Amino acid sequence: MNIGFIGTGTMGRPMLANLVKKGFAVVAYDVVPDALAGAVAAGARAAASPAEVARQSELVVTMLPSSSHVEAVYLGPAGVKEGVAAGRLCIDMSTIDPSVSRRVAAALAQQRVRFVDAPVSGGVPRATDGTLAIMVGGDARDVEEARPVLAALGANIIHVGAVGSGEVAKLCNNLIAGVAAVAVSEAFRIAEGFGVDAKVLTDVISKSSGHTWVMEHMHPVPGLVARSASSQEYAPGFMTDLMAKDLGLAVNAARELRVPVVVSPAAQQVLRLASSHGLGRKDFTAVYTFLKPSDERSPV
Amino acid sequence: MNIGFIGTGTMGRPMLANLVKKGFAVVAYDVVPDALAGAVAAGARAAASPAEVARQSELVVTMLPSSSHVEAVYLGPAGVKEGVAAGRLCIDMSTIDPSVSRRVAAALAQQRVRFVDAPVSGGVPRATDGTLAIMVGGDARDVEEARPVLAALGANIIHVGAVGSGEVAKLCNNLIAGVAAVAVSEAFRIAEGFGVDAKVLTDVISKSSGHTWVMEHMHPVPGLVARSASSQEYAPGFMTDLMAKDLGLAVNAARELRVPVVVSPAAQQVLRLASSHGLGRKDFTAVYTFLKPSDERSPV
Amino acid sequence: MNIGFIGTGTMGRPMLANLVKKGFAVVAYDVVPDALAGAVAAGARAAASPAEVARQSELVVTMLPSSSHVEAVYLGPAGVKEGVAAGRLCIDMSTIDPSVSRRVAAALAQQRVRFVDAPVSGGVPRATDGTLAIMVGGDARDVEEARPVLAALGANIIHVGAVGSGEVAKLCNNLIAGVAAVAVSEAFRIAEGFGVDAKVLTDVISKSSGHTWVMEHMHPVPGLVARSASSQEYAPGFMTDLMAKDLGLAVNAARELRVPVVVSPAAQQVLRLASSHGLGRKDFTAVYTFLKPSDERSPV
Amino acid sequence: MNIGFIGTGTMGRPMLANLVKKGFAVVAYDVVPDALAGAVAAGARAAASPAEVARQSELVVTMLPSSSHVEAVYLGPAGVKEGVAAGRLCIDMSTIDPSVSRRVAAALAQQRVRFVDAPVSGGVPRATDGTLAIMVGGDARDVEEARPVLAALGANIIHVGAVGSGEVAKLCNNLIAGVAAVAVSEAFRIAEGFGVDAKVLTDVISKSSGHTWVMEHMHPVPGLVARSASSQEYAPGFMTDLMAKDLGLAVNAARELRVPVVVSPAAQQVLRLASSHGLGRKDFTAVYTFLKPSDERSPV
Repeated sequence: MNIGFIGTGTMGRPMLANLVKKGFAVVAYDVVPDALAGAVAAGARAAASPAEVARQSELVVTMLPSSSHVEAVYLGPAGVKEGVAAGRLCIDMSTIDPSVSRRVAAALAQQRVRFVDAPVSGGVPRATDGTLAIMVGGDARDVEEARPVLAALGANIIHVGAVGSGEVAKLCNNLIAGVAAVAVSEAFRIAEGFGVDAKVLTDVISKSSGHTWVMEHMHPVPGLVARSASSQEYAPGFMTDLMAKDLGLAVNAARELRVPVVVSPAAQQVLRLASSHGLGRKDFTAVYTFLKPSDERSPV
Repeated sequence: MNIGFIGTGTMGRPMLANLVKKGFAVVAYDVVPDALAGAVAAGARAAASPAEVARQSELVVTMLPSSSHVEAVYLGPAGVKEGVAAGRLCIDMSTIDPSVSRRVAAALAQQRVRFVDAPVSGGVPRATDGTLAIMVGGDARDVEEARPVLAALGANIIHVGAVGSGEVAKLCNNLIAGVAAVAVSEAFRIAEGFGVDAKVLTDVISKSSGHTWVMEHMHPVPGLVARSASSQEYAPGFMTDLMAKDLGLAVNAARELRVPVVVSPAAQQVLRLASSHGLGRKDFTAVYTFLKPSDERSPV
Repeated sequence: MNIGFIGTGTMGRPMLANLVKKGFAVVAYDVVPDALAGAVAAGARAAASPAEVARQSELVVTMLPSSSHVEAVYLGPAGVKEGVAAGRLCIDMSTIDPSVSRRVAAALAQQRVRFVDAPVSGGVPRATDGTLAIMVGGDARDVEEARPVLAALGANIIHVGAVGSGEVAKLCNNLIAGVAAVAVSEAFRIAEGFGVDAKVLTDVISKSSGHTWVMEHMHPVPGLVARSASSQEYAPGFMTDLMAKDLGLAVNAARELRVPVVVSPAAQQVLRLASSHGLGRKDFTAVYTFLKPSDERSPV
Repeated sequence: MNIGFIGTGTMGRPMLANLVKKGFAVVAYDVVPDALAGAVAAGARAAASPAEVARQSELVVTMLPSSSHVEAVYLGPAGVKEGVAAGRLCIDMSTIDPSVSRRVAAALAQQRVRFVDAPVSGGVPRATDGTLAIMVGGDARDVEEARPVLAALGANIIHVGAVGSGEVAKLCNNLIAGVAAVAVSEAFRIAEGFGVDAKVLTDVISKSSGHTWVMEHMHPVPGLVARSASSQEYAPGFMTDLMAKDLGLAVNAARELRVPVVVSPAAQQVLRLASSHGLGRKDFTAVYTFLKPSDERSPV
C-alpha cells in the first residue's frame, strides 16, 4: 500500500521510518527542506506538495505542528484536497483544535473523502519504538480501515468517538495532567517551606485523595521517582512548550463552547511564563523550579 | 485515663462518643450550649471552660472550626494554658493553619506542656465508625503517647514530622484533591460540549497521565462511579465550604512563605463562588454543576 | 454613492439607518430574514448574498457577530470576494480577532481589493445617534477614503495603524476596562465586608493610584454614579456576554502571540461564569452582584 | 509633647526625623540595633522596649512591617499595652490586616487606651518631605487628637471611618492599582505583538473606558511618561514586594470575609513570581518586563 506522509519533523520522521520498516511504500512532503531530506533518508520518496502526495498515495497521514498548518495542508493552495481522489481516507495525527478537525473533515466530505483524527502521546522515544498511544476520532469503519497503519506506529489504539473525539480526549487528558503537575508543585513547595520531608509527604498523599498519576510517575520534585524527568534535570519527557500549547487548545475550545474554566487557564499561563523565562524545552514538571519562593525580605 | 475534650460539634461529638465507648472517662467543653449538652448525652461530664477541662484531665483533645478558635481555646482567657499542669500532652485535631499549631505549641512549651497536631480526614461517617485517617505532627515520643487515644478514633495514623506537619500534610493533600476536582470538571465539561461520551473518556483518562484518585473515586459527573457523591445528588462527602476553607489555608500558608501559587487560588475562588451561589453544603465535586456552559447567544 | 451593508442586526440596523439618512443609497444583506426585513424598512434594498451586495455597491460595510462570520461572509461561498471588483474598499466594523482581519485583508489583496478594520464602541444608543467611537486600522489613504462613510456613523474616528490595529486597540482598551470592573467590584465587596462606606471610599480612591474611568463613570456599586448601569438595575450599557467575548478575543490573541497574561483570563472566566448564571445580558458591571460573599457558616 | 515612636526602619526614620524637626520630643524603639541607632542620630532618645516607650510618652506612633509585628509590639511581652497609661492614644501607621487593627484596638480598649490606624502612601521620598497621604480609621475625636502629629508627617489626611477603615481604604486602592498595572502590561504586550505603536494606543485608551491613573502616571512601558518608574529602569516608586504584600493582605481579608475574588489573587501571584525571579525591589510596574512573550518555537 502506498502511504502519503506530510509533516516529517521531529515526531513525524521516526513515525515515517516505522511505516517504511513495516513494508509500506511512503511518499513524503514537508515545507522545510531539511525535514523532507530526512524523510528521504528514512526511505521515502519526496513529493512537491501536499496535493502531489495525495495524488500519489492510497492513504494520507499528516503530522503537523498546529491547527493552521493542518487547515493549510488540507484545504489551502496545492493542498491535499486538490489531489485526493474520492473515497480515500486521511489520518491526521497532529494535536490540534477539535473544531478544526471537524471543519477539515466536513470540507473533505464534500468530495467524498474520509477523515479521522488520531493524535498521539508518548513523545519521540515511543514514536521511535512504534509504541505510541493513539486516540482516534472518526466513523467506526474508517477507524478499522486506519488500524493497520496505526498499528505500525503505536501500541495502544483507542477509538473514542466521532471525528474530533481523539483530539478532545487528548486535550482533556493533558488538561488534567498539566493542572495536576502545577498543583503537585505548589503543594510540595508549601511543604518544603514548612520543612516537611518530601518523601514522607509523597507516601501520605499516594494513599489519599490527592493521589495522581503525575505524582506517581512524573514527580516534579527531583530524587523521589527514579525515572522521572525531574530526576534527570528535567530533560523531557513532554516539553513545557507542548503542554502550554495543549492547555491553550483546551482553554480555547472552552471559550468557543462557552464553558467556564478556571484552573486550566491558570496552569496554561504559568507554563507560558515558565517558557518565557527559559524552561520551554524542559519537561513541563520543571514548573516546580519556576515556583520557587521569593527570597528577598521586603522593607517596612 | 481522664480525657478532656473541647469542641463537641458535628465532628467532635461522634469522636467523643468513641472515646467513651473505649472506656475513657471524658470531661467536655463547648462554647455552644447545645453542643455541650450533646457531649453529656454521649456520656461525658461537662466543664465550665477550657481551663477547667485542662484541670480535670490527664490529656486534652481539641476539635475546633478555625485557627482563631484554637488560639482562643488554648491561649485566651480561661483557656487550656491557664489550667493545664506541666508535663501534660495536648492533641489538636482541628484543621488549621500550621503556623498557628506551631505558635500554640511554642506558647505551651513555655510551661513544659507538650502539643501534637492531628487533623483528620473521612468526615462524619468515619468519625462515627472510628475509622478516620489521622495525620500527626509532633515529637516522636509525644506521638507514641497519643497513639492509644488516636487509635480509638481512627484506623490509619501517620506520623508525618515535627509539630505542624500533620496540618501541612492534610492541606497539601487537599490542595491537590481540590484542584483535581476542578480540573476534572473542566475537562468533562469541554468533552460534553463536543459530544464525547463521558464513560469512554473516563476509561481513556484512567489509563493515561490524567489519572487521579478524584476521578476514580469521586467523579464529578453523575452516574459514572456508583458510590460517588455526584451519583447521590452531591450529598457530601466533603463539603464545598470545607474544601474552600482548606484551599484558603493552603494559599494563606503560601503567602506567608512567599511561595508563588496559581492553580490553588484559582480553585479556591471558584469553590468560594460556588458556595456564594448555594453549593456550600453540597459535596465539593458539585463544582461541576457550577461550571455549566453559558446558554445565551450574544447579539452582534 | 452606493454602499453595501452586510449584517443588519441589533447594531447594524441603526448604523444602516444613519447611512440612509445621510443620503447614501444602501443595498443590504443578512442571513437572518427578519434582520434583512428590518434593513429594508430602514430604507435599504435587499440583496440575495454577500457576493450580490458586493456586485451592486461601490463600497462594502460589514457588521458581524464573530470572526468566523467575517471569514465566511468575505471568503466563503457567495461571499464578498466573489462579487467585489478590483480596486474597491471594504470596511469591517465587527469586533473580531485581529489576525482574522489581517487574513481577510490578505485574501482580498490578491485581487487588488482594499480592506480596513473599524470596530466601534458606544453600543446601540450611540449607533442610533451616529456618535460611535471608531478605531480604524488600515492604509492611511484607505482610511481617508472611508472617512466620509464613517463620519455618518460616528463622532470620534481614530486611525490607529495598519490593518488589524483598530481591533487591537479595541480589545486592549476593553481588556483593561473589563479587568478594572472586576477589580473595583472586588475592592468594594471587601470594603463592604468591613463596613466601610462606599461613597467615602470612592472619594478616597478617585484621588489616588486606584482611580479608573470605570469607577468614575460605570461604578459597579449602585447609587453612587447617577447614570451608571448599576443605578439602573444593570441595564446595559455593555453586556456581560460582549465583554466576555472581547476578553476572550484578547486572551486568544495573547495565546497566539505567546504573550503570558494572567488577570485578563481571570476576568474573562468570572464574566463567563456570571453569564452562565444568568447575567449575560446585564451590564458587565453586574459582576459586582455575582461576587457576593458566602453567607453560610461552615460546620466543624 | 512627648511622642513615642516604634519601628524606625526605612520608612519610620524619615518620619521620626520630621517629628523632631517640628519640635516634638521623641523616644524611640526598634528591635534592630542599627535602626534604633539611626533614630538616635535623627534626634530621638532610645528606650529599651515598646513598654518603655509607652511609659515615657504621651502618644505612641508605630510603623512596622507586618500584622504579626504589630500584634507583638502592642500585645506581646514588654509591649505597649504593658506600659501605656489609661486614656492615652496610639497611632499605628503600618500597612496591615484591618482585622488585626481591630483586634489590637479592642485589646487596648480593655484598659481604656485609644487606637487609630493611619497607613500611608507615598514611599520614602514623601516620608522625607513630610507629604505622605494618610488614610485614617478611628473615632472622630481620636482622629482630631491625632491630627497635629499626622500633619507633621503628611499633606493629605483623610478620615475614612471606624478603626481599621484606614487600612481597608489603602488595601482597596492598592488592589485596584496593582491589578491595573498588570492589566495595562498585558494589553501593551498584546499590542506590541501585533506591532501597534504604544504611544498611539496610549492616546486612544486615555480617552476611553480603559483609562486608569496607573497608565497616566505610572505607565509600565518605558519612554511614554517622563517621570514614570519604567522610564528610570523601574527604580521604585513602589516596590513589587510591597505591592505583592498589599495584594496578599487584600486577598486574605477577602478570604476571612468569604468574599470571592479572582483578579486580585491572579495579580498577587504574578507579582510574587516576579519577585521570586529578581524583580522584588524594582517598581511593581516592572511586571511588564516579566510578562515577556515566549521566544522559542515549539517542535511538532
